[in-house]
Amino acid sequence: MAERKRKIVNDPVYGFITIDHPLIFALISHPYYQRLRRIHQMALAHMVYPGAMHTRFHHSLGAYHLMSCALSELKGKGVEITDEEEIAAKMAILLHDIGHGPYSHALENGIIEGVSHEKISQWLMEELNKEMNGALSLTIEIFNGRYHKTFLHQLVSSQLDVDRMDYLNRDSFFTGVSEGVIGYDRIIKMLTVQRNELMVEEKGIYSIEKFIVARRLMYWQVYLHKTVLSAENMLVKILKRAKELALKGVSLYASPALEYFLYHTITAANFEQEPACLQQFCLLDDYDILSAIKVWANHTDPVLSLLCKWLTNRHLFKCLLSNEAFDTSAITLLKTQVQERYGISGHDLDYFVFTGTASLSAYNINNERINILFKDGTVKDISSIDNALVSHTLAIPVKKFYICHPKI
Amino acid sequence: MAERKRKIVNDPVYGFITIDHPLIFALISHPYYQRLRRIHQMALAHMVYPGAMHTRFHHSLGAYHLMSCALSELKGKGVEITDEEEIAAKMAILLHDIGHGPYSHALENGIIEGVSHEKISQWLMEELNKEMNGALSLTIEIFNGRYHKTFLHQLVSSQLDVDRMDYLNRDSFFTGVSEGVIGYDRIIKMLTVQRNELMVEEKGIYSIEKFIVARRLMYWQVYLHKTVLSAENMLVKILKRAKELALKGVSLYASPALEYFLYHTITAANFEQEPACLQQFCLLDDYDILSAIKVWANHTDPVLSLLCKWLTNRHLFKCLLSNEAFDTSAITLLKTQVQERYGISGHDLDYFVFTGTASLSAYNINNERINILFKDGTVKDISSIDNALVSHTLAIPVKKFYICHPKI
Amino acid sequence: MAERKRKIVNDPVYGFITIDHPLIFALISHPYYQRLRRIHQMALAHMVYPGAMHTRFHHSLGAYHLMSCALSELKGKGVEITDEEEIAAKMAILLHDIGHGPYSHALENGIIEGVSHEKISQWLMEELNKEMNGALSLTIEIFNGRYHKTFLHQLVSSQLDVDRMDYLNRDSFFTGVSEGVIGYDRIIKMLTVQRNELMVEEKGIYSIEKFIVARRLMYWQVYLHKTVLSAENMLVKILKRAKELALKGVSLYASPALEYFLYHTITAANFEQEPACLQQFCLLDDYDILSAIKVWANHTDPVLSLLCKWLTNRHLFKCLLSNEAFDTSAITLLKTQVQERYGISGHDLDYFVFTGTASLSAYNINNERINILFKDGTVKDISSIDNALVSHTLAIPVKKFYICHPKI
Amino acid sequence: MAERKRKIVNDPVYGFITIDHPLIFALISHPYYQRLRRIHQMALAHMVYPGAMHTRFHHSLGAYHLMSCALSELKGKGVEITDEEEIAAKMAILLHDIGHGPYSHALENGIIEGVSHEKISQWLMEELNKEMNGALSLTIEIFNGRYHKTFLHQLVSSQLDVDRMDYLNRDSFFTGVSEGVIGYDRIIKMLTVQRNELMVEEKGIYSIEKFIVARRLMYWQVYLHKTVLSAENMLVKILKRAKELALKGVSLYASPALEYFLYHTITAANFEQEPACLQQFCLLDDYDILSAIKVWANHTDPVLSLLCKWLTNRHLFKCLLSNEAFDTSAITLLKTQVQERYGISGHDLDYFVFTGTASLSAYNINNERINILFKDGTVKDISSIDNALVSHTLAIPVKKFYICHPKI
Repeated sequence: MAERKRKIVNDPVYGFITIDHPLIFALISHPYYQRLRRIHQMALAHMVYPGAMHTRFHHSLGAYHLMSCALSELKGKGVEITDEEEIAAKMAILLHDIGHGPYSHALENGIIEGVSHEKISQWLMEELNKEMNGALSLTIEIFNGRYHKTFLHQLVSSQLDVDRMDYLNRDSFFTGVSEGVIGYDRIIKMLTVQRNELMVEEKGIYSIEKFIVARRLMYWQVYLHKTVLSAENMLVKILKRAKELALKGVSLYASPALEYFLYHTITAANFEQEPACLQQFCLLDDYDILSAIKVWANHTDPVLSLLCKWLTNRHLFKCLLSNEAFDTSAITLLKTQVQERYGISGHDLDYFVFTGTASLSAYNINNERINILFKDGTVKDISSIDNALVSHTLAIPVKKFYICHPKI
Repeated sequence: MAERKRKIVNDPVYGFITIDHPLIFALISHPYYQRLRRIHQMALAHMVYPGAMHTRFHHSLGAYHLMSCALSELKGKGVEITDEEEIAAKMAILLHDIGHGPYSHALENGIIEGVSHEKISQWLMEELNKEMNGALSLTIEIFNGRYHKTFLHQLVSSQLDVDRMDYLNRDSFFTGVSEGVIGYDRIIKMLTVQRNELMVEEKGIYSIEKFIVARRLMYWQVYLHKTVLSAENMLVKILKRAKELALKGVSLYASPALEYFLYHTITAANFEQEPACLQQFCLLDDYDILSAIKVWANHTDPVLSLLCKWLTNRHLFKCLLSNEAFDTSAITLLKTQVQERYGISGHDLDYFVFTGTASLSAYNINNERINILFKDGTVKDISSIDNALVSHTLAIPVKKFYICHPKI
Repeated sequence: MAERKRKIVNDPVYGFITIDHPLIFALISHPYYQRLRRIHQMALAHMVYPGAMHTRFHHSLGAYHLMSCALSELKGKGVEITDEEEIAAKMAILLHDIGHGPYSHALENGIIEGVSHEKISQWLMEELNKEMNGALSLTIEIFNGRYHKTFLHQLVSSQLDVDRMDYLNRDSFFTGVSEGVIGYDRIIKMLTVQRNELMVEEKGIYSIEKFIVARRLMYWQVYLHKTVLSAENMLVKILKRAKELALKGVSLYASPALEYFLYHTITAANFEQEPACLQQFCLLDDYDILSAIKVWANHTDPVLSLLCKWLTNRHLFKCLLSNEAFDTSAITLLKTQVQERYGISGHDLDYFVFTGTASLSAYNINNERINILFKDGTVKDISSIDNALVSHTLAIPVKKFYICHPKI
Repeated sequence: MAERKRKIVNDPVYGFITIDHPLIFALISHPYYQRLRRIHQMALAHMVYPGAMHTRFHHSLGAYHLMSCALSELKGKGVEITDEEEIAAKMAILLHDIGHGPYSHALENGIIEGVSHEKISQWLMEELNKEMNGALSLTIEIFNGRYHKTFLHQLVSSQLDVDRMDYLNRDSFFTGVSEGVIGYDRIIKMLTVQRNELMVEEKGIYSIEKFIVARRLMYWQVYLHKTVLSAENMLVKILKRAKELALKGVSLYASPALEYFLYHTITAANFEQEPACLQQFCLLDDYDILSAIKVWANHTDPVLSLLCKWLTNRHLFKCLLSNEAFDTSAITLLKTQVQERYGISGHDLDYFVFTGTASLSAYNINNERINILFKDGTVKDISSIDNALVSHTLAIPVKKFYICHPKI
């Protein structure tokens, strides 16, 4: 009985995840991938949903599991997928979030402005491909949508990809927002391929509707929950302030990796030209950020220390959501109140009273559509089907305005 | 430690259901209520979803549990509800389905045409009220919407009642259609009362949307699943044929109760004037029907025997759903084919080839609306809220056409 | 894309069950197998656990699913299993309960004494094999333990077979007794084969312990629950009495199939010599029994009518469990009280006051043991492992005594 | 409608947790309690079970929820519990883990030897009681077992306390080890009180057995999993080495709080005499430790850097479990191999090759026993009941030996 190395990982969402290929082992063991263990999938959402502590490591492992299921289902239906393509697609999904830094959104808005995590993913994949002697070439082709079997890319990245399926499942599981649960197993069983494009069989229409509605609910109830917005905006402000102080030469407690990004102006060019930049990035995770913030709570800069103390102890800003923009007078009034109560003034008030927008297209008709394959062979975009929920409402983007401020 | 009688019942859906009042015990022990143990909640849906064997007994017990939770939540929020009202509301929900016969839909269309289960529920409640010396008077007032605390009636019967919440939960649990799951616990926590009307707090909007979408999905995927429609229509035809034969004097195997309803023309007047009628009705359940059908599979009438043999062995009619009505030529063609293949002819063909319609209003704007209470005190119907899914799509009734016929 | 017929069935326990082989379709569609839809897996346990309405049809489908998982796991570990063996093993598990009649235990003790359901299963398999032109020959060999790859038989029938795994899962799911849940997916991942024998890998020991403890719990808490024992013994008594009356020539309402078994003395010889016997048996299910009992509630025989009325309306006997046998004086006293209260006398009292025993070996060391394969290649029976729960306690059979009687 | 402040928290384990008392709000909002958000409940177990990222904050909130359920159940059974006692018991359970530091076990063995987390809990409760003007006095009495209603203490701390119930539930939920699931809701419904002692009703025996078996399984399969032991021992060694270096005056990256504990010899006396000590302790959490370890991976001390690099990248020690102690020759051999391969020598080898023991009493007969109350009023310890699993096996402590070493 020849037995090849085979490992099962307990996953509360799917039961067990099986890993059984040397390339997959190699990838998962790589420090770049292990780093994702130290990055929370949902950033600070655990301040509202205490269960939401799961990591990007766990999420991409889950997405890999769904990819395995989807490929096996498609092969069972006669879709031709070679072993090489299968491994490449699995590695593509494992790597899809590899470029995320800690508190991605906050990082990109506070410290490394203008460098997206997608870009960093690309650089890291190329780096890994070199290390692995080209074993990731097909993976990168699939990832970038340049491989002719388009459905492999669509499984990695589209409006019905295994990334979304996993994060909806996983985030609703760990937050306990049971309403975000989707029928992923049914959706996967309804997947099919026609002319290299990913399709959903006709009888899967209601599951797709439900999937889109679940995503919409998760956005408004969880990802864009006003208190989550508040916490994450406080973090953006903290990182902005820290960088501002650092660039002025003020001394700040920081790990070497965090120091690197605080005390330098970083652009895409740095990543491309200085190997140290990407290396330092790969040392950065949630632990650097939060441990610094706790220390900064005692910094001499009142803006920084106040924000850090509040975030650490969960004294979060009030956050108000509205369908209309807030007018300037409301903002001015709040700033005056904050000035009186906390002694903050001038531009520093922008760290304490600010507005923003949150928006969502539950379904985007312009991009990577979800195709339904009818029994008679016709193909329709989900949003163009009679009676479907999607056409009328879910395809319209929704935008909300919010304002944040300390308790007054 | 004074301990009053208290019983807990294991329920796979909610964990445990507690019964702790003598009137509730009395009601549940009554033969009229025990009869519901022998009536499947989902009729023949188990032919498609094998887990769907749960009973109306179990469903009404579940709805009673949700009623208990809802009342306790409302009392916790300061809504005044007396002990008497509480017990009455609980008994009202326990009794809400008491008038259902076996395979209700088929029965009403095949044997006791023109007598609805709602009507029978009324008669049975009055009957029980007499037996219980008026203990159900308030229950009946609440049930019929005549009690001034309207929210009690709305919990029993409205578009957001505990009946719907339980059957969506329970039916999705037992069918395994996980997409029908609703956030009932969250919805219950969002309930409130204003001016004696049931309301949902603003932050419950997305849960309500999800509830309506889940219901829509359950209809199209389960309740109106084409094979379920096929099985249930076969049953209608079987009962119609049996009654037709019986009224002609043909001998048919039947339990005394079933015999009563087959060999008499029954109208509402019979129920009202002949005590035997209601008594016989209370002896009738799924077991009478299915055991007769198995015997009828060997009857000399070829229409009856063929239909019964097929239903028993799950050789179901093909059923085709369409957004448009089927034209006569299609029907004629199918009838010709059936005549050739099975030797059925003339009017008898109507038992084998027939059309019907299935329709659903996911949300009905005309009736027992779902009211949302905003933080500023305003109240809006869920369908009149900006960005809400309900307004645009879910409030539009959907109608589908179907045609059934044997394999040809 | 060549697509062969493939059907998925929703199962609340496992999600989806896939059927994708013509022989499996043929078997499941056969009237003998469809009959299992009308036989409750847990007989009258639903009188205590209202969710326990699932059928033998559903259970054997579930066991088939676990067999598919186990075979696929073993093949993944390099165990050689041919396509023919795979299908045969799957059909063997589908058929493992085919000989069960309605309320098997009651039937075997009340109407067809001396003919076990195992025997009937054998006859039915042979019958089906003829119909299917020998397609079941290997299935029957595996079923009877005559095939050299013993592990296939062990998966069908041993102390760690997929039958037990499914019924523990399924019964705990439908009763809501969450404590009966077993880690079936983990157990299956730990299965392996050595010298054609089924083994469990060393690291699966705790899961096996848990499995045995769960089974023990389900026995005492569910299968041998005193009220379940009461209901099932009442049914035995009803059938015994009915048969007694029938053999005396008393007229009894019954379906033709039930009539056949009531009005004839049936032995194994009848089944073997008269084809009608097996045919009638295949027409018999829960519906025949329960619908008759409802009618018998009005029979002129007071013993029969009283028992039937009580069972129908769930006025069940009191049942007392004890570690010691009940002495005769207690029985005599109860009989006197029953005689006074209900006017029953003489031998008829045996229908109302009686004792019995319930026993369980959580693990049986004499039979189809569970083997653990250690990393160093040694094999040990689970009960001979140091520190294992099984050795000391679980392998000792437990016997309890019970007494039943009406309310006095 | 007077509505008092009331908050619901989503919990994936129990659905919703309700907080509705000002004292509870005050406690949860306190920085000492918020700190528990940054301490993982299961330390490094997430390296094996990636879902196990939940925090001590979440666990104590869950235990609080179970306490609420248990108290409400007991009150429903007529046990007298005043409002003040209820709040005090709830606060006691919220605070039961307040003294845990980051990676408690590692901390206590590596940095603050000789100061247990139980001790620190005591100091912190007293501290909080001062701040809250004595509001915690009754809480502390209950916590320490000095209040006459012993059952309140037993709910907080005994072999059947809500702490154990929650951690078994929660840890099995987040690890996905479904076999650790316990029937907590059933156990709670079976709780009762006699002479101020907590009891379990007779019919709860099997649930208790299952609870003890589940705990045993969780220990061997999760808490004492060899790879978990390996990771946690590596952490102990890292902290020991860091402290060793610090006390020698070597410079080490550390947050101020961590620095405090590394660069001072800390005993219970320090905590008792220097307020700074407790204050610094309350600033310490997982983030300080892990972010330092990542930096130490580049330290000049080869022992420290190697251990830190390995832990960060999950190159964990091999760990072997055995029923017997390892002999010296095996250890010596391994040390020689490590010396050759990694160039470590002398005492430093003790950081790389070492042995330890893991032990468990599934049920401890000497301490805070689980009492069963029989219907006839007798009370028995669970381990003294006939046929009960506990008596024979589960009450015997099990001890295992392990050895750890790097890959060679």
